[in-house]
Amino acid sequence: MLYSELVGKTNKTAKQFESINATLLQKGGYIRPLMSGVYSYLTLGLLVLRKIEQIVREEMSAVGGQEILMPVLHPKENWEATGRWDTMDCLFKIKGSGGADMALGPTHEEIVTPLVQAYVLSYHDLPRAVFQIQTKFRNEARSKSGLLRGREFLMKDMYSFHSDEADLDQYYAKVEKAYEKIWNRLGLGDKTLKTYASGGAFSKFSHEYQTLSENGEDIIFICKKCNVAVNKEIFGEQNACLQCGNKDLLEKKAIEVGNIFKLKTRFSESFQFTYVDRGQSKKSVYMGCYGIGISRLMGVLVELFNDGKAIYWPKEVAPFDIHLIGLNQEDDTVCGNASALYNKLRAEGKSVLFDDRVNISAGEKFADADLIGIPTRLIISKRTGPEPERKEIKFSL
Amino acid sequence: MLYSELVGKTNKTAKQFESINATLLQKGGYIRPLMSGVYSYLTLGLLVLRKIEQIVREEMSAVGGQEILMPVLHPKENWEATGRWDTMDCLFKIKGSGGADMALGPTHEEIVTPLVQAYVLSYHDLPRAVFQIQTKFRNEARSKSGLLRGREFLMKDMYSFHSDEADLDQYYAKVEKAYEKIWNRLGLGDKTLKTYASGGAFSKFSHEYQTLSENGEDIIFICKKCNVAVNKEIFGEQNACLQCGNKDLLEKKAIEVGNIFKLKTRFSESFQFTYVDRGQSKKSVYMGCYGIGISRLMGVLVELFNDGKAIYWPKEVAPFDIHLIGLNQEDDTVCGNASALYNKLRAEGKSVLFDDRVNISAGEKFADADLIGIPTRLIISKRTGPEPERKEIKFSL
Repeated sequence: MLYSELVGKTNKTAKQFESINATLLQKGGYIRPLMSGVYSYLTLGLLVLRKIEQIVREEMSAVGGQEILMPVLHPKENWEATGRWDTMDCLFKIKGSGGADMALGPTHEEIVTPLVQAYVLSYHDLPRAVFQIQTKFRNEARSKSGLLRGREFLMKDMYSFHSDEADLDQYYAKVEKAYEKIWNRLGLGDKTLKTYASGGAFSKFSHEYQTLSENGEDIIFICKKCNVAVNKEIFGEQNACLQCGNKDLLEKKAIEVGNIFKLKTRFSESFQFTYVDRGQSKKSVYMGCYGIGISRLMGVLVELFNDGKAIYWPKEVAPFDIHLIGLNQEDDTVCGNASALYNKLRAEGKSVLFDDRVNISAGEKFADADLIGIPTRLIISKRTGPEPERKEIKFSL
Repeated sequence: MLYSELVGKTNKTAKQFESINATLLQKGGYIRPLMSGVYSYLTLGLLVLRKIEQIVREEMSAVGGQEILMPVLHPKENWEATGRWDTMDCLFKIKGSGGADMALGPTHEEIVTPLVQAYVLSYHDLPRAVFQIQTKFRNEARSKSGLLRGREFLMKDMYSFHSDEADLDQYYAKVEKAYEKIWNRLGLGDKTLKTYASGGAFSKFSHEYQTLSENGEDIIFICKKCNVAVNKEIFGEQNACLQCGNKDLLEKKAIEVGNIFKLKTRFSESFQFTYVDRGQSKKSVYMGCYGIGISRLMGVLVELFNDGKAIYWPKEVAPFDIHLIGLNQEDDTVCGNASALYNKLRAEGKSVLFDDRVNISAGEKFADADLIGIPTRLIISKRTGPEPERKEIKFSL
């Protein structure tokens, strides 16, 4: 990609927003707000989003998740069946033609349960897991945290279906491992803790994955022995590590990047979703659900990998493999060397952002490269000749 | 993928819907309706959708389109700026928290114009083209044509930005060629005609791409000399071929699969989107827009490639490269041979749907394979030994 042709340029003078991710992603030309909590992803931004998406997709597929795609528009009846039409927080409601009430999906238990029900008749058809990477909606009153809390956002939501609780437990443990792989691949492994949280009506606890960040909205208490945490929301009752009982806990701010939840029969019962077991009797299906905020993760990566002025993308999610910077591109030899290298790298299968602009100072080009934050930079200048100078930008959490 | 584990099985007794695409896609386990005009894509369905998407993406990238992603939620102000808040057909309107009026995007001129405006200052920044593959909404009163007309549907919409009309014309011609490549890659080339249609307020004509189908909602008149058509909606005024004046035209039903439109300065003027030209004066930006119905194309492919009972996917969009059918899978030798072949094919990089079910008759397995419609089938049975019998299912339009 030629920087000269890129849609979504850096903007050094962009204003400061309340959150560092909103500020830096806009300075870098990654996103642009349309209204509070609603963003467009520009060329660079979509590349990062798709890379995060792909990592999550691979790990969900590796644990047998099948990718599907469910709708945004949900009929009221499905939400009434579970009793959540009136109780769901921030549910966007809309009238269809003819006056039909609908919701914009903030989550998909109401849709996935009857969907999978149609194809699961007996124990032969279990277990199953389906996931989607899909745009979700929450009618938030306030959303000023950039990509951390949107009114429209991209989620991965997986749902699993089991013949009994033991099978659910086993799969739940498998997904826990898949989630750990995802945090590691994103470079967030050391900062992301499995955290006990409220289990809602049907489980004692659910689990969140919380990434430590001074700008987090959640407060967690970390057990240094077990390296798990407890969310403050349940800490009143549980002022000790829930795994070892240790009471010497560290209080930290964090951002929830994922959650996993044993729904058990909460939703299958709402839809009378049963299967025929080996003994020919009808049993309720056990369900689990597993969320990851894809667009939120993009925001979290910026919150963690920045120095206040610039983004430092982990290699796995950088929008391009290489940022090739041609200095003095107005010089024919430099321009020729840089273009030849650009073509060679692409022929080798590398993705390259090539700053091919002429009459732009070295200082400005380097400042833009900092704002964009691709870690591997190759520089061609009058001094280098055809062999580029290589810079690997490192950032330690 | 093991058929035994697939979510979304064939359903031979599924009811007949008003449209053949809705019926066959549900019998094949591809989609499932949630409500009128709103569908879930099951495992097989999403694979087909993604393949269509990828073909379109590649051809849009080949003409310099940069992929971005714009929101579903649009603020009322943007639609007021263009005067379309009250005039746009089937616009879904919704209230956000605090009472703010918003729309669910049916198209994105109102969003892309000010978005690109932020990054285009002078003639150096032109031309540009951006596209997205994104879920769109129309509050249709009636939507009974399966994937042909949805209330929620997947579109590719590209928008181009130019310094003058000549540059727009040049790019428009380039996109015409890209569109032809897409129809050819999808196997629809022979059946899809460039069709003159209404140009709305600011152009004399726009162009649609119409695929001939007895179930189409549009009527077009085809010039056999030029192989272009005229949409009936403008035929009253233009009862001749618009390219050669020929009056011997053929009337046919067709489905609109794409449209291209010279917007000229219709939207740039609404947003005062100007650039500074070489002579330092301010000029309005010229725009074009280019749509393709991705989910509609999936429906169109079924409308064309079926024999009334089964789907015949073109290879380019079939959900898997190969349908491997193990007959008598309950026999250890057959099961071993089929599994070995399954692993070998996947190791070679082929995607394979493997019918591994035991105690299912050959007749039933073949009937399911017909419903699913993958053209390349390999059969392992007691008779074949480890070398499969190969069937290539052909369907001529």
